[in-house]
Amino acid sequence: MLYFRNDYSEGAHPEILSALCDTNLIKTPGYGHDDYCRRAANRIRELCRAPEAGVHFLFGGTQVNKVAIGAFLRPYEAVIAPDCGHINVHEVGAIEHNGHKILPCSCPDGKLTTDMIEKVLDQNNSEQAVVPRLVFLSNATELGTVYSRAELEALHSLCEDRDLLLYCDGARLGSAITAVGSDLSFPDYARICDAFTIGGTKNGLLFGEALVVTNTALQEGFRYAMKQQGAVLAKGRLLGVQYETVLRDGLYLRLARHANMMADRLRQGLADLGISVLSDSTTNQIFPILAASDAAKLREQCDFEIIEPMNNNRVCIRFVTSWATKPEEVEQLIRILGQL
Amino acid sequence: MLYFRNDYSEGAHPEILSALCDTNLIKTPGYGHDDYCRRAANRIRELCRAPEAGVHFLFGGTQVNKVAIGAFLRPYEAVIAPDCGHINVHEVGAIEHNGHKILPCSCPDGKLTTDMIEKVLDQNNSEQAVVPRLVFLSNATELGTVYSRAELEALHSLCEDRDLLLYCDGARLGSAITAVGSDLSFPDYARICDAFTIGGTKNGLLFGEALVVTNTALQEGFRYAMKQQGAVLAKGRLLGVQYETVLRDGLYLRLARHANMMADRLRQGLADLGISVLSDSTTNQIFPILAASDAAKLREQCDFEIIEPMNNNRVCIRFVTSWATKPEEVEQLIRILGQL
Amino acid sequence: MLYFRNDYSEGAHPEILSALCDTNLIKTPGYGHDDYCRRAANRIRELCRAPEAGVHFLFGGTQVNKVAIGAFLRPYEAVIAPDCGHINVHEVGAIEHNGHKILPCSCPDGKLTTDMIEKVLDQNNSEQAVVPRLVFLSNATELGTVYSRAELEALHSLCEDRDLLLYCDGARLGSAITAVGSDLSFPDYARICDAFTIGGTKNGLLFGEALVVTNTALQEGFRYAMKQQGAVLAKGRLLGVQYETVLRDGLYLRLARHANMMADRLRQGLADLGISVLSDSTTNQIFPILAASDAAKLREQCDFEIIEPMNNNRVCIRFVTSWATKPEEVEQLIRILGQL
Amino acid sequence: MLYFRNDYSEGAHPEILSALCDTNLIKTPGYGHDDYCRRAANRIRELCRAPEAGVHFLFGGTQVNKVAIGAFLRPYEAVIAPDCGHINVHEVGAIEHNGHKILPCSCPDGKLTTDMIEKVLDQNNSEQAVVPRLVFLSNATELGTVYSRAELEALHSLCEDRDLLLYCDGARLGSAITAVGSDLSFPDYARICDAFTIGGTKNGLLFGEALVVTNTALQEGFRYAMKQQGAVLAKGRLLGVQYETVLRDGLYLRLARHANMMADRLRQGLADLGISVLSDSTTNQIFPILAASDAAKLREQCDFEIIEPMNNNRVCIRFVTSWATKPEEVEQLIRILGQL
Repeated sequence: MLYFRNDYSEGAHPEILSALCDTNLIKTPGYGHDDYCRRAANRIRELCRAPEAGVHFLFGGTQVNKVAIGAFLRPYEAVIAPDCGHINVHEVGAIEHNGHKILPCSCPDGKLTTDMIEKVLDQNNSEQAVVPRLVFLSNATELGTVYSRAELEALHSLCEDRDLLLYCDGARLGSAITAVGSDLSFPDYARICDAFTIGGTKNGLLFGEALVVTNTALQEGFRYAMKQQGAVLAKGRLLGVQYETVLRDGLYLRLARHANMMADRLRQGLADLGISVLSDSTTNQIFPILAASDAAKLREQCDFEIIEPMNNNRVCIRFVTSWATKPEEVEQLIRILGQL
Repeated sequence: MLYFRNDYSEGAHPEILSALCDTNLIKTPGYGHDDYCRRAANRIRELCRAPEAGVHFLFGGTQVNKVAIGAFLRPYEAVIAPDCGHINVHEVGAIEHNGHKILPCSCPDGKLTTDMIEKVLDQNNSEQAVVPRLVFLSNATELGTVYSRAELEALHSLCEDRDLLLYCDGARLGSAITAVGSDLSFPDYARICDAFTIGGTKNGLLFGEALVVTNTALQEGFRYAMKQQGAVLAKGRLLGVQYETVLRDGLYLRLARHANMMADRLRQGLADLGISVLSDSTTNQIFPILAASDAAKLREQCDFEIIEPMNNNRVCIRFVTSWATKPEEVEQLIRILGQL
Repeated sequence: MLYFRNDYSEGAHPEILSALCDTNLIKTPGYGHDDYCRRAANRIRELCRAPEAGVHFLFGGTQVNKVAIGAFLRPYEAVIAPDCGHINVHEVGAIEHNGHKILPCSCPDGKLTTDMIEKVLDQNNSEQAVVPRLVFLSNATELGTVYSRAELEALHSLCEDRDLLLYCDGARLGSAITAVGSDLSFPDYARICDAFTIGGTKNGLLFGEALVVTNTALQEGFRYAMKQQGAVLAKGRLLGVQYETVLRDGLYLRLARHANMMADRLRQGLADLGISVLSDSTTNQIFPILAASDAAKLREQCDFEIIEPMNNNRVCIRFVTSWATKPEEVEQLIRILGQL
Repeated sequence: MLYFRNDYSEGAHPEILSALCDTNLIKTPGYGHDDYCRRAANRIRELCRAPEAGVHFLFGGTQVNKVAIGAFLRPYEAVIAPDCGHINVHEVGAIEHNGHKILPCSCPDGKLTTDMIEKVLDQNNSEQAVVPRLVFLSNATELGTVYSRAELEALHSLCEDRDLLLYCDGARLGSAITAVGSDLSFPDYARICDAFTIGGTKNGLLFGEALVVTNTALQEGFRYAMKQQGAVLAKGRLLGVQYETVLRDGLYLRLARHANMMADRLRQGLADLGISVLSDSTTNQIFPILAASDAAKLREQCDFEIIEPMNNNRVCIRFVTSWATKPEEVEQLIRILGQL
């Protein structure tokens, strides 16, 4: 059975697992007050050329979005996000649970534009409306597309003009950075965003998301917000060790690049077979559109996710590649698709 | 200067004010534990033919929506509402402040349909999505339109099938009930809705909204929820006295009918002048579309609200009539409009 | 039947009611954007010699405490309060409902001291503890006692040193200011506190609490916080008219002084009868301790509240006087007490 | 340097780590929908003789308390807890962040009694007070003491009578079960409590807390509550694998028993040296009282936590043993203490 369901199906990359095993019996203080976390945080500051950045290690994606946005906003402030944004549809209202409204924008390709944001601002400018305050985006997006540097700069510039915070959910940041045609680097994110995450769970860690807070006005008290929301890991070392390892010698981007290469090959295969896709993805998520009957047949040999029904008895599905995907698995999938 | 800005520009209808004055020095226990409140609640149960209904008096519209929805839902449950619904756009995220996501439906005429609701249910049926649990509607709607009995019955039936609660914001319930062509009465609302409000603020009271909770499963503990949210009035008598007065001898519907008649006359005047309107309102809110320059001129002689800019240099404005609107004011407004 | 149950048993003082009647049909914009509110706010700034103060009018006491504290604090910040403080015991967890822990201090006479606060700070100085940030006190206190100027100055000074906000719930501020021996005036409160309230409900208004925010850092966005919590009155004028009236020609303090004088006379009566009291109240709440059997007998002729059982079959009860209490009612109560 | 600071200083017990390594590359569905989690949950139901119990795996102690209590309560319901209870002092107001007040009881030995609970109920029985609804206790307690079966049965019986839920934080449940003199087993907890946790983090797992919900009325919708609070682990398998391993062949209790035996030996050593302790602990936390100067000297050779200053220049410190503590480390600590 092939497995293209997601990029968190396996455990950790062997180097990372080894590092956890090697340090297993070393005694450290709890809650992230250990040398591994300290070094990993410094490594991130260095990579991002952001020596003043606050760096925090959390457990999961919903958690980091929830804690960060909750800590950054005042009660009546709201979040502008793509309608397909993870926080809007896949986190059971985690942001609203903290009291904040999400103002969704319709984004056909998963990406926000300055026009969309300005429209939201225009619609929410009275005393009866929430105060839009934070722009949430994901890169890579939920549709596998990637913002260009020019696009992010434009959003950044609008945010500065309109006193908005810019937050980037980087659950798949590695995939975004290493995608063909991408022109954004770690220091770009640090410069452009008020805060962003460097996702680990979907890029070879057992678990873990690193939050980088470059806007110093947002740094105060963040540790309290984490603890209050149950987001401080007792054995914090586990996060420090994993990030230290994955950020050493370029492993993080190497793993992401592998996932992208596997996706690129699969994309080529789909194109050769004339199978259309929902979005112009350049990263490790691909959204082919198949006849529903073909999808059902494929299911017998490959695990994947069904996204939504389309017209003409077709269905949009999702393939995800990862650091652990093998070239022969991709070839086999293409073969099977060719036989449908 | 004419005044068609809203239906809460004045104080109370004279009969209601008199009742407040007459009872001013009578000593009563606080927090609504007085005979006025008891009698007013019983009167509402009688009017609604709902002897088991819980009846609570609160003082404002945002407040009653916030407290009721917050008390009815579990943390991960969400609200389906028209995108133009008051809770979605005009209450600074009050529902989200209590932790609940609103799932908005695009409603061109302000009214929800079963199709819209089913679509939301289909889109929110995974463990990663919120659980849609309460359908929020306003009657009259925010666009001045009115649900028919058949329409509400259809929503009710769907709600029963899909385990949804049906909640009606009746800030302008009197206007809905007395609108030309309306076929819904107090007992209909009590039978169809799990809870609904009988609005006072916009229909001749100084302030006050009565909440009727007919679903007994939602009644427990409601007083605590009110107090916790600052919604119990120390001198609760003020609400009891007002509701007892306005519900005696049909005053409530008489005031609403007057407002509607003033609006009907104004509607006729607009039609005669060939001025188009945004929605097919039959209640006390009318949404004419004027050339922006005409609106600016009108502004000099009449106070009203501007809703939104339209194409071709036009603008949608709003006229609201009330229990206090005088026929001659309507005639004068029509005259001025004719001279634009 | 005598009535010493509370100071919100009646409606409004006749002058205030008249003002409401006189302005009843004047059309004003909603939500407090009217001249009455503007003038009343200016009058408060003038009285307090605080020209930069933010002034907001809310409906009730739980509401104003909940909205203000919720707006002032970040999510992990906590409130230091007397254990008998209104927010700690009488508001159904309204502060916690907004997410904030209350750290209670045991206050035998209802008053906080710097020692108590310092002890709380010492106990909450780790990353695992909440961050104490706001000191809540009531003046007059819940036990009828009054802080002296020196006492409040000492708290203020500690708050400055330890980066704490000082908030005074003035539900009975008039009674505190006019109590025999009191040395605090409106400008003192404005100077000493970051925010405080000038209570109306318990001092002759139909309803209403004025919030004065002198710390400018706390002013931004407050209107949004009010609206989000359902605390903006549609017919805001009602609050402006009442406050404008009660603050004209010293009516506010005159009403409070009357209540205190009635209480002073009652206190004297109790002393003459040798009836002991729970606290050294100088304001309009008195807490006599009676044999339980006497309290039961008294109940037949006078309405009052029972506070708590005491040892030796005694019970602590509460008498409250108000602007509406008549001298002959006090004399009659003393007579009845003498006959027990 | 000796290390008696806590029981989460190391990683995982080698058997558990091996299991994680062995399963590292096996592909599983995310979010706990895998066979490891299913089997681990079934094993817990079997151990507890609670075939209908809901079992959920979360990753931290603050998290599981916050999510569970938040899911179980309605907004105005409150928690009765020992004043030293973890949720009251060590979790940055996590319970209040979800909106619920904690009503603390003074517990000299860390244990709640029925008297304490009844007193809280008496003090909170009005419409102005929160509704006490859930009794929170920890076993072992924060002071290392253990409830007897009779004590828990008494609490359970009171809870049934007064419609309260009983929740046991079992972060150190293994230590409680294996303590000398303990007469409570897994099935006892399942029978007595509405919900309880079987802590992993402090008993040999990398991380993880298992929540057992035996009251079926509390089970509905729990997965949504978890996801909404960021408490669903993407690679849920990690929790399933660890619990399956530690609950096989009695490893869980074996690890706890080892920690207790190390503590028993240390207790004996302290007694022999005449060093007094704060509480009558029988589990893996010990609270010796030392001269402050001795504590400072000890610090040079051993890491431990300082709990609080005591009178006479003494200080209460804490030693914690764990599954990883070696007998020779205990002996060395005793030797050092003897030389102070």
